[in-house]
Amino acid sequence: MKTEKTIRDAYPASEKVYVDGKLHDIKVGMRKVKLTDTVKIVDGKRVVTHNDDVYVYDTSGPYTDPDIEINLEKGLPRLREKWITARGDVEQLPQITSQYGRMRLADHSLDSLRFEHMKPPYRAKAGKEITQMYYARQGIITPEMEYVAIRENLQNEKLGIETHITPEFVRDEIAAGRAIIPANINHPEAEPMIIGRNFLVKLNTNIGNSALSSSIEEEVDKAVWSCRWGGDTLMDLSTGANIHETREWIIRNCPVPVGTVPIYQALEKVNGEVENLTWELYRDTLIEQCEQGVDYFTIHAGVLKEHAELVKERLTGIVSRGGSIMTKWCVMHDCESFLYTHFDDICEILKQYDVAISLGDGMRPGSIHDANDRSQFLELDVLGQLTQKAWAHNVQVIIEGPGHIPMHKIKENMDRQLSSCHEAPFYTLGPLTTDIAPGYDHITSAIGAAQIAWYGTAMICYVTPKEHLGLPNREDVRNGVIAYKIAAHAADLAKGHPGAQVRDDALSKARFEFRWKDQFNLSLDPERALEYYKEGSKHDG
Amino acid sequence: MKTEKTIRDAYPASEKVYVDGKLHDIKVGMRKVKLTDTVKIVDGKRVVTHNDDVYVYDTSGPYTDPDIEINLEKGLPRLREKWITARGDVEQLPQITSQYGRMRLADHSLDSLRFEHMKPPYRAKAGKEITQMYYARQGIITPEMEYVAIRENLQNEKLGIETHITPEFVRDEIAAGRAIIPANINHPEAEPMIIGRNFLVKLNTNIGNSALSSSIEEEVDKAVWSCRWGGDTLMDLSTGANIHETREWIIRNCPVPVGTVPIYQALEKVNGEVENLTWELYRDTLIEQCEQGVDYFTIHAGVLKEHAELVKERLTGIVSRGGSIMTKWCVMHDCESFLYTHFDDICEILKQYDVAISLGDGMRPGSIHDANDRSQFLELDVLGQLTQKAWAHNVQVIIEGPGHIPMHKIKENMDRQLSSCHEAPFYTLGPLTTDIAPGYDHITSAIGAAQIAWYGTAMICYVTPKEHLGLPNREDVRNGVIAYKIAAHAADLAKGHPGAQVRDDALSKARFEFRWKDQFNLSLDPERALEYYKEGSKHDG
Repeated sequence: MKTEKTIRDAYPASEKVYVDGKLHDIKVGMRKVKLTDTVKIVDGKRVVTHNDDVYVYDTSGPYTDPDIEINLEKGLPRLREKWITARGDVEQLPQITSQYGRMRLADHSLDSLRFEHMKPPYRAKAGKEITQMYYARQGIITPEMEYVAIRENLQNEKLGIETHITPEFVRDEIAAGRAIIPANINHPEAEPMIIGRNFLVKLNTNIGNSALSSSIEEEVDKAVWSCRWGGDTLMDLSTGANIHETREWIIRNCPVPVGTVPIYQALEKVNGEVENLTWELYRDTLIEQCEQGVDYFTIHAGVLKEHAELVKERLTGIVSRGGSIMTKWCVMHDCESFLYTHFDDICEILKQYDVAISLGDGMRPGSIHDANDRSQFLELDVLGQLTQKAWAHNVQVIIEGPGHIPMHKIKENMDRQLSSCHEAPFYTLGPLTTDIAPGYDHITSAIGAAQIAWYGTAMICYVTPKEHLGLPNREDVRNGVIAYKIAAHAADLAKGHPGAQVRDDALSKARFEFRWKDQFNLSLDPERALEYYKEGSKHDG
Repeated sequence: MKTEKTIRDAYPASEKVYVDGKLHDIKVGMRKVKLTDTVKIVDGKRVVTHNDDVYVYDTSGPYTDPDIEINLEKGLPRLREKWITARGDVEQLPQITSQYGRMRLADHSLDSLRFEHMKPPYRAKAGKEITQMYYARQGIITPEMEYVAIRENLQNEKLGIETHITPEFVRDEIAAGRAIIPANINHPEAEPMIIGRNFLVKLNTNIGNSALSSSIEEEVDKAVWSCRWGGDTLMDLSTGANIHETREWIIRNCPVPVGTVPIYQALEKVNGEVENLTWELYRDTLIEQCEQGVDYFTIHAGVLKEHAELVKERLTGIVSRGGSIMTKWCVMHDCESFLYTHFDDICEILKQYDVAISLGDGMRPGSIHDANDRSQFLELDVLGQLTQKAWAHNVQVIIEGPGHIPMHKIKENMDRQLSSCHEAPFYTLGPLTTDIAPGYDHITSAIGAAQIAWYGTAMICYVTPKEHLGLPNREDVRNGVIAYKIAAHAADLAKGHPGAQVRDDALSKARFEFRWKDQFNLSLDPERALEYYKEGSKHDG
């Protein structure tokens, strides 16, 4: 397996730089964009003015550092491993715990698919608490917390821009549940990042093979590709064959936190027969994925039996796959969902690996018509209760949100989420602000995402132009990520994130002075800007 | 010259239909989308339910009516001519009035370029007032007013949806200056449309050749192409050779109102030497264009001498071309702009043809940094004074707005515009909500456009992916228009425009029932949706 050159190439005029920690021995990667000088002729003389380098947030990890050797078969350097082990509260297990994982390992027909250099998993020592939330509540500033504080500030210190984001602030936000650092101890390759409304708005990208489509190689390539363009976290929504092995490859090579929806894999294990899903099977799946290093799980624990009746009022019923699975299960068994009844057990498992919970919105509206209806907000209240349960276990929580929402109903979503869910970070899909533009839903939803992020959503889940139509290819991923980088950055500006405007100002100055290359190099997609510039200068036809 | 097949093709499963007027003998064109039935199997039986046709707003004019013969060399049918002449208040001139127009006509070297079937222009009879605003203030409901009332409502009557939009309401909004119908008596080919915040949000597209680029044929093709995708008005910003002749071709074949920036052409006439611009030259240009049929003029009459000093505080100075020209002129001549000092004279000319004024925002900010600054709002106040002057002449007015504005500063633009400009319709370029995404500015700006339109902007000026980089090609026009149709429609939904949600609901129902073709046919771009569906169903690479 080889990384394509496009993934390793640095952005033009850019250099990977590292900022050292002050509390911990850490190095925080950023991208420095070098600018040319401004040259003016004043009174017949050439006056040259220097333009400062601009530091930009960099999600591409080691891939864009030419000094780091990349070998997908070995996986990325395990950046956080020594931070984790130094705390003395985890142990390396002799072997993996889940039955399914062991079964796969014993199956030699899978050897050729398998990631070779697997390490035994870590788990909390008996009686130890190891989540970032636990540490924060103890008043501890972990290396992860200092890392994100530095990362969020970019060049602020250098430029003398005042900032509220200190390591102490990070700790306090995590302690209060207002932010999370998704950082499974079994995914030490990932660079720490923070999700919370008092920080830069983050974006998630989805990848995933389906039964008929992509290979492991393609999935790893897409994962790295989405990080290159700016994906802050990555959800692997695979439903096809060899999910277990594919996931191992992705996690070992992914520089950002990885999320999954474990019920999808559980369903694969019972050949898609919802009736046959059991708590025991789901439990084993959680452990399997915790030990592989998934950083956060979408868990649709707020879907209750009573929802089945309520959604009959809807135009588009239940469009969340997880929501649909769990409603079906509740109806078939005529009892409450095991995700709900076993929620404390779930937390007990996750806290041993510091896996965060993303409480799924199984009742999200699938159309403008169904926005902000009873089922949706009833579920949100349940998610609020579950949030407090998780926090009692020191498990970090984010809350998933819709979906399809017209603009005038967006704010209510944010307001209710903050009050129902006690300010846990909100993580929304779009929302799409109209249903009439299949093929352009990255745009219908970027409009909504920018607004809800401005109102306080901490992370927005990207939508590609292929939404509702098919699986995205590489170009769709690029277009989806850039549309969402725009939405996130527009929200950062509107929220007054410290230093967010530095890049806008530098680019605008370059534009005004006709420093074309600087303009392109400072843009979200220098390649595209240059391509259009060349094309647009030609005779247009 | 031939229209390409793509322009004449109707949308799939669509039919051009006409709704008759009740007050006047008019036929209002719409597109009817036919849907398939819903088929369900209930208790082993096939249950078929009919789905109603959906009527959508149609800016493509006669091009998509197979019963109308299209011949670009003859121009479109002159739909409004008999309405105009029936009022008995206009006269057909023996020949064109402007010196420049006569000079061009006398130049036989231009014969091959010229539109052949030119009709002598109309003008108000001496002492007669002929603007839609004048009629409205007299309590008259013109055919144009009834036309737009029917057009705005689409299927509302059929579906029993309550609507505030009656012919009387249209009249009252125009009388109050809260809406305009740009409808030069010399552009009878255009279908009436209304711009006002209590109506559907409209979008303008820009085309225009520059010195080195397109031919007349290409410009006409682009004009018609942009109407096909949903452009409600069209601005011809040509700066190259043969502007006069190109404009004639465009107007004669354009089914939507056409706007221009006359100062651009005036500047061409003095070979780009700003100093040599004079009121007399500008005046002749206005008359030339009034008699060709331009429906609205962008006039940067709010740019004052004092602005030159103020903009020195800016990062990106003056980015409006008109603003820059006029500031330069003021400084060179050390006197106030002739657009400002001759504003009453301008109105006297325009009212004879019912040409509307779009008061240009020469001081619009060109970057996030310069948003909502002193120069911008000072100009806005001047535009408010000029609005009242124009209204005293019964000349219809809209106000142009920015530009580059971060989200949290958008609302202030709308609020100030409404109060400074006495509720005259606002017409904004975007706004772009961040500067860092050249190549994707249709998205950075659709985010802002959707918001400002929701707050009350009546018309949004599209931005294509090539903004800041080069001239748009056909595909860019399509992408720009669709992004703005999305923004406009999202705003219509948020504003609760009567019946706006009918299309969303029909599409979502089709989606939920897996009626794929209906879903595509109801979408803004059926072709693209189908293409992605086919592509996305394949193995993705």
